[in-house]
Amino acid sequence: MEPLLGEARPQAPHPLPTAQCYLTIRAATEALCAPISAEDAALQSMPDASPAKWHLAHCSWFFETFVLGPSIPGYRVFCPAYHHLYNSYYQSVGSPFPRPQRGLLSRPSLEEVVAYRRHVDGCMTDLLATPGTAERSDLLGVVELGLQHEQQHQELLLTDLKHLFFQNPLRPCYRAEAPGRALAPLTDRAWCEHPGGIARIGHTGPGFCFDNEQPRHRRLLEPFALASHPVTNSEWMAFMADGGYERPELWLSDGFEAVRAGGWRAPLYWEREASGWQVFTFAGMQPVGLDDPVCHVSLFEADAFARWSRARLPGEEEWEILAAGAAVEGNFVERGLLRPSPSGAGGKLPRQLFGDVWEWTRSPYGPYPGYRPPEGALGEYNGKFMANQWVLRGGSCATPQGHLRASYRNFFPSSARWQFTGVRIARDLR
Amino acid sequence: MEPLLGEARPQAPHPLPTAQCYLTIRAATEALCAPISAEDAALQSMPDASPAKWHLAHCSWFFETFVLGPSIPGYRVFCPAYHHLYNSYYQSVGSPFPRPQRGLLSRPSLEEVVAYRRHVDGCMTDLLATPGTAERSDLLGVVELGLQHEQQHQELLLTDLKHLFFQNPLRPCYRAEAPGRALAPLTDRAWCEHPGGIARIGHTGPGFCFDNEQPRHRRLLEPFALASHPVTNSEWMAFMADGGYERPELWLSDGFEAVRAGGWRAPLYWEREASGWQVFTFAGMQPVGLDDPVCHVSLFEADAFARWSRARLPGEEEWEILAAGAAVEGNFVERGLLRPSPSGAGGKLPRQLFGDVWEWTRSPYGPYPGYRPPEGALGEYNGKFMANQWVLRGGSCATPQGHLRASYRNFFPSSARWQFTGVRIARDLR
Amino acid sequence: MEPLLGEARPQAPHPLPTAQCYLTIRAATEALCAPISAEDAALQSMPDASPAKWHLAHCSWFFETFVLGPSIPGYRVFCPAYHHLYNSYYQSVGSPFPRPQRGLLSRPSLEEVVAYRRHVDGCMTDLLATPGTAERSDLLGVVELGLQHEQQHQELLLTDLKHLFFQNPLRPCYRAEAPGRALAPLTDRAWCEHPGGIARIGHTGPGFCFDNEQPRHRRLLEPFALASHPVTNSEWMAFMADGGYERPELWLSDGFEAVRAGGWRAPLYWEREASGWQVFTFAGMQPVGLDDPVCHVSLFEADAFARWSRARLPGEEEWEILAAGAAVEGNFVERGLLRPSPSGAGGKLPRQLFGDVWEWTRSPYGPYPGYRPPEGALGEYNGKFMANQWVLRGGSCATPQGHLRASYRNFFPSSARWQFTGVRIARDLR
Amino acid sequence: MEPLLGEARPQAPHPLPTAQCYLTIRAATEALCAPISAEDAALQSMPDASPAKWHLAHCSWFFETFVLGPSIPGYRVFCPAYHHLYNSYYQSVGSPFPRPQRGLLSRPSLEEVVAYRRHVDGCMTDLLATPGTAERSDLLGVVELGLQHEQQHQELLLTDLKHLFFQNPLRPCYRAEAPGRALAPLTDRAWCEHPGGIARIGHTGPGFCFDNEQPRHRRLLEPFALASHPVTNSEWMAFMADGGYERPELWLSDGFEAVRAGGWRAPLYWEREASGWQVFTFAGMQPVGLDDPVCHVSLFEADAFARWSRARLPGEEEWEILAAGAAVEGNFVERGLLRPSPSGAGGKLPRQLFGDVWEWTRSPYGPYPGYRPPEGALGEYNGKFMANQWVLRGGSCATPQGHLRASYRNFFPSSARWQFTGVRIARDLR
Repeated sequence: MEPLLGEARPQAPHPLPTAQCYLTIRAATEALCAPISAEDAALQSMPDASPAKWHLAHCSWFFETFVLGPSIPGYRVFCPAYHHLYNSYYQSVGSPFPRPQRGLLSRPSLEEVVAYRRHVDGCMTDLLATPGTAERSDLLGVVELGLQHEQQHQELLLTDLKHLFFQNPLRPCYRAEAPGRALAPLTDRAWCEHPGGIARIGHTGPGFCFDNEQPRHRRLLEPFALASHPVTNSEWMAFMADGGYERPELWLSDGFEAVRAGGWRAPLYWEREASGWQVFTFAGMQPVGLDDPVCHVSLFEADAFARWSRARLPGEEEWEILAAGAAVEGNFVERGLLRPSPSGAGGKLPRQLFGDVWEWTRSPYGPYPGYRPPEGALGEYNGKFMANQWVLRGGSCATPQGHLRASYRNFFPSSARWQFTGVRIARDLR
Repeated sequence: MEPLLGEARPQAPHPLPTAQCYLTIRAATEALCAPISAEDAALQSMPDASPAKWHLAHCSWFFETFVLGPSIPGYRVFCPAYHHLYNSYYQSVGSPFPRPQRGLLSRPSLEEVVAYRRHVDGCMTDLLATPGTAERSDLLGVVELGLQHEQQHQELLLTDLKHLFFQNPLRPCYRAEAPGRALAPLTDRAWCEHPGGIARIGHTGPGFCFDNEQPRHRRLLEPFALASHPVTNSEWMAFMADGGYERPELWLSDGFEAVRAGGWRAPLYWEREASGWQVFTFAGMQPVGLDDPVCHVSLFEADAFARWSRARLPGEEEWEILAAGAAVEGNFVERGLLRPSPSGAGGKLPRQLFGDVWEWTRSPYGPYPGYRPPEGALGEYNGKFMANQWVLRGGSCATPQGHLRASYRNFFPSSARWQFTGVRIARDLR
Repeated sequence: MEPLLGEARPQAPHPLPTAQCYLTIRAATEALCAPISAEDAALQSMPDASPAKWHLAHCSWFFETFVLGPSIPGYRVFCPAYHHLYNSYYQSVGSPFPRPQRGLLSRPSLEEVVAYRRHVDGCMTDLLATPGTAERSDLLGVVELGLQHEQQHQELLLTDLKHLFFQNPLRPCYRAEAPGRALAPLTDRAWCEHPGGIARIGHTGPGFCFDNEQPRHRRLLEPFALASHPVTNSEWMAFMADGGYERPELWLSDGFEAVRAGGWRAPLYWEREASGWQVFTFAGMQPVGLDDPVCHVSLFEADAFARWSRARLPGEEEWEILAAGAAVEGNFVERGLLRPSPSGAGGKLPRQLFGDVWEWTRSPYGPYPGYRPPEGALGEYNGKFMANQWVLRGGSCATPQGHLRASYRNFFPSSARWQFTGVRIARDLR
Repeated sequence: MEPLLGEARPQAPHPLPTAQCYLTIRAATEALCAPISAEDAALQSMPDASPAKWHLAHCSWFFETFVLGPSIPGYRVFCPAYHHLYNSYYQSVGSPFPRPQRGLLSRPSLEEVVAYRRHVDGCMTDLLATPGTAERSDLLGVVELGLQHEQQHQELLLTDLKHLFFQNPLRPCYRAEAPGRALAPLTDRAWCEHPGGIARIGHTGPGFCFDNEQPRHRRLLEPFALASHPVTNSEWMAFMADGGYERPELWLSDGFEAVRAGGWRAPLYWEREASGWQVFTFAGMQPVGLDDPVCHVSLFEADAFARWSRARLPGEEEWEILAAGAAVEGNFVERGLLRPSPSGAGGKLPRQLFGDVWEWTRSPYGPYPGYRPPEGALGEYNGKFMANQWVLRGGSCATPQGHLRASYRNFFPSSARWQFTGVRIARDLR
């Protein structure tokens, strides 16, 4: 038996989702919509994004379609038309309404969508309170999936809204900047080394995970080191000042084409003003924080920065091995900053693995060896997207803390910039 | 001096716009929005259309920019940002916000836009009540233009909203069908003849007209006849049944390409169901009325139908000559049907020249001989669009009655279908 | 009866096309291809253009399809596949090969296409020599149409080739500049006046004309004046220096959008070099001739120039009335310059109505009153294009002289620049 | 030290390229062009493909730019303009002519391009014969790279030409079918098992390899099996008959979208005729061979077929481990079939690893651990394309045999179909 490095910490037995848990997560979604109007909730800024209202409804559709319908004899859907409107991409349960047209639906109104949520919540809490439900682990498994799914949409709702607001020359403010952004001085980059060897990655233990985190399997690692913290805005400015966006030799070929086609000169949401670089945040335009992790950069930009740094992006297995022993703590959505924050000094290295910014890896998103999607429609959840995307790790300032874990795999295409995506560099040892 | 045919009827002296008149027209715009929500008002279905909220704001911007600003010393605009957001296409007063992005503005809210209207209304009524204003005919001329402009947007607001609602699989209902749609039996098509000769067209008399209706000038007409009423849905079905949409020999080359590219098989808003053809109306899907004027067809379709009928479309001068002596009465927006209605039998011929449907002519939209746009920014109102569009005449069931006259020239590109556009055929005599 | 102005000159009886005439025109087409290689003849620079080889074959297809097939019992086509490949747009005789793909046909080779031409020439000369043919005026009419058609393609072959060569950074030379370009000093612009009245335009007399030049009909003209010669390059430079391409108030709305989208800063084929403006010609890059008529401008540019000049474009009827009495002489393709030339001084005014550059008019291309396309497939020749294009008059330095006449109507869309298109301004009198 | 499986066979010392070797490979390129005309060589069927003439010139440009220029003092290029025209994508040596416009270059003529080749050949053979050159291993390394590069373009020249010919309704024949296509009966699929473990992949030994095959490095394999031969057309027909192209559950999400957008119903080049499925080959349309390996399928199709088969695609490391011990023999371009051929029965398993069809793997194309591109412009050769493409292995019936080896990595995007791409399935053991 080969030695296994980076084993995950022992976990507590996995609690099944309760009505309380259900209601807490559902309420968190709606709390995110408190600052916005029905008009804000109806618009769609681009085909990749969805209106907030659509997110609200789709998450309810998920419970209705995969929990209530199959579990409650004679269940009557809230509105038959919603089955088409709020199906995201599940071909096996019907024909999804075209994604680019989600922003053309002024009806159902936000009020009706909220009523839909109330209806689903009532049925769900009844179901969860029904004697015998607690024993139906298959059913509870889908409930848990539905809640994790809702948490994913909480983040998307925020990133899609930010993108929408940025299209508006008024630069709307979602809410005022929360006080208490850590502005502790940043220490220099250190390198966190790992000797390599055969290690296991993928989810283990009793807690929830998505299918794409399994099966847990062995990987062979060569000795490597991970940067102690994500790349900062001041480092990014040095890259820009050194002609980072103008030098083709730093870029993948498709990446440089994306630079050219998109007119990229800085991360998304940056704007140059007389007073210096400003960045669009949920509190409107703000000065770029020099020690903040750089954010809203694409895989292509992350890769070019790493090349410029004579480093590389980490592999997802490298990231996971180093993260496996760390507590899932950091600047998550619950902190209310909704923007990445400097790491400060002190504490255990590496810092900020969790929260602040999703970290691009050099790993194309694909199935783990032996991966099999679940049977049935829920098999469409992850598996069919395993091509032409890249793995990101660690969660962001818009991710619910309880949603994350070391084995969590997020994924986006190489040009995507509107998520809270940042960079941590790595290098080979020897 | 040659004989002049078709002289326009003598007109009453032209009343200058009063505060009352102003408030009446402004209120009419808002009344059209009574049935819709803020969400309905914010969305944009295609680049050619605008959100209802944008129409509401833009009309106020017009008064603020062209009346209040120039007339009131020290006038402070309601919000400086609106100058960019609500400028439609006036390059000489600034940089218009891009039209395809009008649907990305959740802010200003509908409520703020209504407050903007109240602000402008207050200033306008003050101005109109100011001693001396009544003598400033140049100023009152711009006020009148602003009101006519607002009436144009009343119709566009409706047609854009209808197009938006049609994108929604729920097929929303704007309001229930008003009772009283005339369903009198239709008589056969008759021909209204005209002997030709030199005639004058273009606006005359003291009333308001747009610059594009002038100068009044001479035209040489050959003997012709105009159909007694617009083409009906049952006639259109005969065209369809005869392969109208499949026979290239009936079409202009670009027209047949539009048929192919757009998958046209029937007028816009028609849907084939088991029970027969249905049409989307402001009251949702309704059976196609056989005796109703066909509506929502493009110039290309109108032209193909005319060719199939061994007829042609009328020239705008022919239409105007026959309409010049007729009363401007018919199925206008005030009737509340918001849908074309059968002509019924009896009465003077030709029927339905005014109201029901705009009638495509064979006249490309261009300047009248000697045409000069006004000096200044308002010169951009009409003149710069005089290419690659076609003249329509007569107004529709969505046009305010007081807005129309025989010399009125509407214009749209040859593929446009979302206006209330129909067909009246003509033919040469001899 | 009203006075008729501008009557066309009496014409000689119309000679029927003979084998000699046929062979002369066919040979002229091939002579244009003498300087080019099979490779040059195979390529297509844009969907609007065709490879030279395609032009060569299509003109033969025309004779085969509309003359040989219907006239010779048991005629066997040269190659059945050509019926699809070389059909331009005649839906009623089959399915045309898609225009944008004409440049994907390396086979048939140029050699095979030439063989095809020889085959058709043999059959055609046999047919024309057959006793009785000379009496078949319907047949000879189609032969004549085929020859006129071939002449149209002679010009297109040249303009398409010029456009292709310009895509090549080598800036290939079609042939060296012919000596003898008139460089006589230019006199100032004079105005050629016309008192207006009722006049007749459209073809008259025994000679050939296209269907779109008929029926001859009456037009009412107001007094006007036409410039004595086309706008020159030095005048165009003054327009450019005065911000002509940057000032939206000079442009139609669609025109200014075309300027922006196409990055237009000067006429097509102009390039700014250290030594001044150069222009691409059939003899490669050459200095822009200050007194040459400006060429390769769109309708939009012509219209903006006219507005800048406080003038307007002529109506096609105005042009024709003034041209009706003039001899069809000028810088045509036979002169071999293949580029517009200064008018020089002296001689009768207006100068250069014929040859040099096609002159944009303000007339949208449409049917004359009472126009009827011919029965059958040849009815597709002109009629189906009568929308969204503009009439040009007078022919160019790439037009065969014998092809032109005062009533000739050419037509192109408002953004087209690759033809030899120029500008003559006009103005209202009074 | 862990056991190493699948070690590559010992190789002979690596011979340096001689003038003879150079001339042989250059001549092979030109031999491929023997059946085609200058017209065939000039056309480009799509932006991803290049004209044959461009391939011919670009390969010479490579030697001129990277060998002759740097090595010969005072070397004068054949034509300065070629430096721009025939640069494919090397940003560091200049500005490449845009790829989509390569088909707009009728000049330089094929004849001139051949003269360019002769010029480069003369200089190259002089250089290789110069005393001292044999000792300059750096120089000879670039010569070798240039020859391998030329071999890559030999295959691309064929696949691009095939694609061009297929756009032509005449379905041109490149050359008649060579006799001797093996049509031996096919045996059933067997599985070639491997026990897994730590193995090394990547090039080893003295022979040439591309930078992307290095560094040789360790991989951890789980037990797996590879199919004994590639998927055949009859198997593919079973997939099609089972609704393979209509069932979204078999496809990656982007793959099913590609099916829909491209109207895919069968492999590229297949056409359904009354007599059954035909396929376009270099000898024109031919019946689909049931036992032939399926060809011209995309990664998406390969993946869907594997899923339908309850199998998966192999990883590139799995493929390489099994191939490492096999002789590089098979149906390569030298055999002259230019089309995949049945494996027949008998012989060592797995069959047809080399030749016939490139085999899609499930491995996204990326850098090997520790990969570094070469310094200088040649660092652009491979590294900058390591994103959003997929690895293919084994060579095809259009690949030169001497060009291939077990560690060879080809790569194309997931929708590409115009290469000779096929499928071998794999599965996990246990």
